[in-house]
Amino acid sequence: MADRRFFTLAGALPLSRIAEATGSVLSDPSQGGLAMTDVAPLETAEKTHLGFLDNKKYIDVFRATKAGACFVRVELASHAPAGTVCLTNKNPYKAYAIAAAMFYPPERPETRVAPSAVVDASAKIGADCVIEEGAVIGANVKIGDRCRIQAHAVIRQGVEIGSDCDIGPHVTVSHALIGDKVRLHHGVCIGRQGFGFAIDPAGFVAVPQLGRVIIGPDVEIGANTTVDRGAGPDTVIGQGTRIDNLVQIAHNVKIGKYCVIVAQVGISGSTQVGDYAMLGGQAGLAGHIKIGAGAKVAAQSGLMRDVPDGAEVMGSPAVPIRQSMKQTAVLAKLATRKKGEEA
Amino acid sequence: MADRRFFTLAGALPLSRIAEATGSVLSDPSQGGLAMTDVAPLETAEKTHLGFLDNKKYIDVFRATKAGACFVRVELASHAPAGTVCLTNKNPYKAYAIAAAMFYPPERPETRVAPSAVVDASAKIGADCVIEEGAVIGANVKIGDRCRIQAHAVIRQGVEIGSDCDIGPHVTVSHALIGDKVRLHHGVCIGRQGFGFAIDPAGFVAVPQLGRVIIGPDVEIGANTTVDRGAGPDTVIGQGTRIDNLVQIAHNVKIGKYCVIVAQVGISGSTQVGDYAMLGGQAGLAGHIKIGAGAKVAAQSGLMRDVPDGAEVMGSPAVPIRQSMKQTAVLAKLATRKKGEEA
Amino acid sequence: MADRRFFTLAGALPLSRIAEATGSVLSDPSQGGLAMTDVAPLETAEKTHLGFLDNKKYIDVFRATKAGACFVRVELASHAPAGTVCLTNKNPYKAYAIAAAMFYPPERPETRVAPSAVVDASAKIGADCVIEEGAVIGANVKIGDRCRIQAHAVIRQGVEIGSDCDIGPHVTVSHALIGDKVRLHHGVCIGRQGFGFAIDPAGFVAVPQLGRVIIGPDVEIGANTTVDRGAGPDTVIGQGTRIDNLVQIAHNVKIGKYCVIVAQVGISGSTQVGDYAMLGGQAGLAGHIKIGAGAKVAAQSGLMRDVPDGAEVMGSPAVPIRQSMKQTAVLAKLATRKKGEEA
Repeated sequence: MADRRFFTLAGALPLSRIAEATGSVLSDPSQGGLAMTDVAPLETAEKTHLGFLDNKKYIDVFRATKAGACFVRVELASHAPAGTVCLTNKNPYKAYAIAAAMFYPPERPETRVAPSAVVDASAKIGADCVIEEGAVIGANVKIGDRCRIQAHAVIRQGVEIGSDCDIGPHVTVSHALIGDKVRLHHGVCIGRQGFGFAIDPAGFVAVPQLGRVIIGPDVEIGANTTVDRGAGPDTVIGQGTRIDNLVQIAHNVKIGKYCVIVAQVGISGSTQVGDYAMLGGQAGLAGHIKIGAGAKVAAQSGLMRDVPDGAEVMGSPAVPIRQSMKQTAVLAKLATRKKGEEA
Repeated sequence: MADRRFFTLAGALPLSRIAEATGSVLSDPSQGGLAMTDVAPLETAEKTHLGFLDNKKYIDVFRATKAGACFVRVELASHAPAGTVCLTNKNPYKAYAIAAAMFYPPERPETRVAPSAVVDASAKIGADCVIEEGAVIGANVKIGDRCRIQAHAVIRQGVEIGSDCDIGPHVTVSHALIGDKVRLHHGVCIGRQGFGFAIDPAGFVAVPQLGRVIIGPDVEIGANTTVDRGAGPDTVIGQGTRIDNLVQIAHNVKIGKYCVIVAQVGISGSTQVGDYAMLGGQAGLAGHIKIGAGAKVAAQSGLMRDVPDGAEVMGSPAVPIRQSMKQTAVLAKLATRKKGEEA
Repeated sequence: MADRRFFTLAGALPLSRIAEATGSVLSDPSQGGLAMTDVAPLETAEKTHLGFLDNKKYIDVFRATKAGACFVRVELASHAPAGTVCLTNKNPYKAYAIAAAMFYPPERPETRVAPSAVVDASAKIGADCVIEEGAVIGANVKIGDRCRIQAHAVIRQGVEIGSDCDIGPHVTVSHALIGDKVRLHHGVCIGRQGFGFAIDPAGFVAVPQLGRVIIGPDVEIGANTTVDRGAGPDTVIGQGTRIDNLVQIAHNVKIGKYCVIVAQVGISGSTQVGDYAMLGGQAGLAGHIKIGAGAKVAAQSGLMRDVPDGAEVMGSPAVPIRQSMKQTAVLAKLATRKKGEEA
């Protein structure tokens, strides 16, 4: 069970209700009344616990589990031990996610404005918001309903934030329009002026950065990630995109819908990332290039050119993944030759 | 036009005044009285807008623009469409930067000390400063004139900051002496004790870090970047240097004047970077090495050795850029051979 | 001497006391009464200063030093100049660390709770703690004795922190149990929900992250580093481990004791790092792999597979260091062939 100091377990739930909520089918319909009390990993699950099997690699763990019930794909259900009721589902991990949220429903903090928060008189705050200690909300800011503005977050003049957003502690947002259901984690910086200056023998001359950051609905941005505002055009992050910790997104970058951007990725100015693209950790993208929709970029890759839709690339400089693997193999082979052999 | 929620447009300006301020020459001197109302990209510019052409690649956009006037190099001015007055200049991007700042002059926030700021009685704060909400300013701190200390910034005991500085929200500065016109963005950490410890079978023994961070005038440091203080010698960042977001600068590092350090670069302890050097994003520099003046390091490069003045290097481990490209090409060729071909 | 604005020098100390405290042997026992006033680098040290020689490379500096005394390994002591008393020690750098801390003892800030700190009535704070400006301490938090909670740090509900900890400015800690003597630097984020979601055609479904972060005693974590909480299992950092700035540690990662993790390393979910392992700067570790105890991973390496105990690896993808060097050499050779030569 999750640590009660941090998580609150809701009451028991009958399998029938879990099956319904997750769109799963009970392998034994007569067990619909069986009460589950918690979710748990298959290894440690007990009789009233609900687990999931997503990765075939763990089939032996599944065979030995003591879990009372388990989400599983229909073709693997026959491996279930005698005591485990199967909830068959095409996407057991998603079903588990939904069920886990039923046992541990997100807690809504009580509506309040902390006495130490400073909210400008011209700001418009929606219903049922939480404004925590030290939050600073500037002139003409608009915030929707049911938002949480966590401790010490700074929302600068004119920023607009939708409903059901969670703005983490120590976040700064400026020059930005943010959709509904957006989550910004600790320390995120949105809307800083980008890294733009004219180079001149007498020094650098800052170029006023006159664009904004536009963040679509249901975007999540990890801790200490930085998103610079546009130089003239906007920096844009599309609906549903997930961005991990410590990512850098430079000015004028356009990111599509439902992309996945893993930790420590860096995206240089004016680059475009298509819908559903996935960027592995620490990948670096040069400026002014275009990553196609659905493209997959391996971790640590370095991209200096466009990538077509659906392509999978790897390496620095990045090449198609199959070629990258061949290059790795051929280099390893060359390096292991004995002296005297022809290179 | 830039979003009025975030930017304030100054009034119209005659071309003659823009030409004078930027050191440009009007292609048609009789048009000096023509009033411009805004800057804009050439694609979307209208009759009273001012654009710029810096990159020859965009010459067709220039030919088709509706901008009333445009900064351009003299040799390209003949491509201007009939309705566009040229302001010829050797550095059109710099001229644009100056003009854009005339239309959108930096706004000076009103002088004030927020009631929630905590300023030690022994601190000396110059004239016309802004000290925002929650800022904490320690004993014996000295801050020059016209500085902005943004929300929740923490300035520790003894730190000295010049005039016209902008210390961003959630910044911490300790053990540092900072010149005039320095900008530190959101979340920057200056002066943390470096990563120094003696390794011992019984654990690690911290080595007291007795140096400082010295930051020259007109330095800019991006969001969430970290600069550790020296171990004995100081960590030094030279005049005018521009550092992007999420960069790591370890103890005792010396960075020269007017360097450009792109996002997510990491510089290990005691390394020296010469004046005017440029380090591409995510480059990593080993400790105790010397990067020559004017050197250019490509993105994601890994440097384990000294780099001569003016050299251009690439790759991990880094080699001269031409060699790096050859290596990439030869490896690609080897990997595409058919089986049976001689390697 | 260290800058008096930032550091406070304790009084003079006789060599005998320094020798005793550091477990060193005086080359000339009659000099035990000689008073040292400070530590200093050998180059700049004066008569009453104490230096150290750790790296043979600096033997000539040692020969020419004016330091009154110097920590040195016994086999190098004969190179000391006439005026320098040797304190011989197997680990001169460690001895220096101890001595430097005698001259510059860590200053304990005065016990206090800042008026702007917000401490929940149910939180239990130990004796002699410092709670600085704007710190926010949630319900049921437990904090041991002699802790410093720096400005604006946010400690969420239920978190437990041992004694003698230093929680830096702008830190957020949630869902975590933290041992004694732990130091978290500026901007660290502990306990964020990990990057976990089920992929579904209709978007992403967040998977509740029900684990914690467990941090052993004497761990140090650098500025702006992020450590996500477990998804079900915990994220664990073992005793004594040192983590540098801007590191990313994903959910379920287990890090052993006394590891060294240099700046900007990224460790993906569920990966395990054995005791005493060392990860060079910007190295990236894929998820679900195992790095053996005592392994050494070179800077910028990319790890996709397990690494055996004690192995040294390099490159992306990483291979044994010797092989990596051969690969680098063979590739350089191939690239420098003239046209017409056999490849």
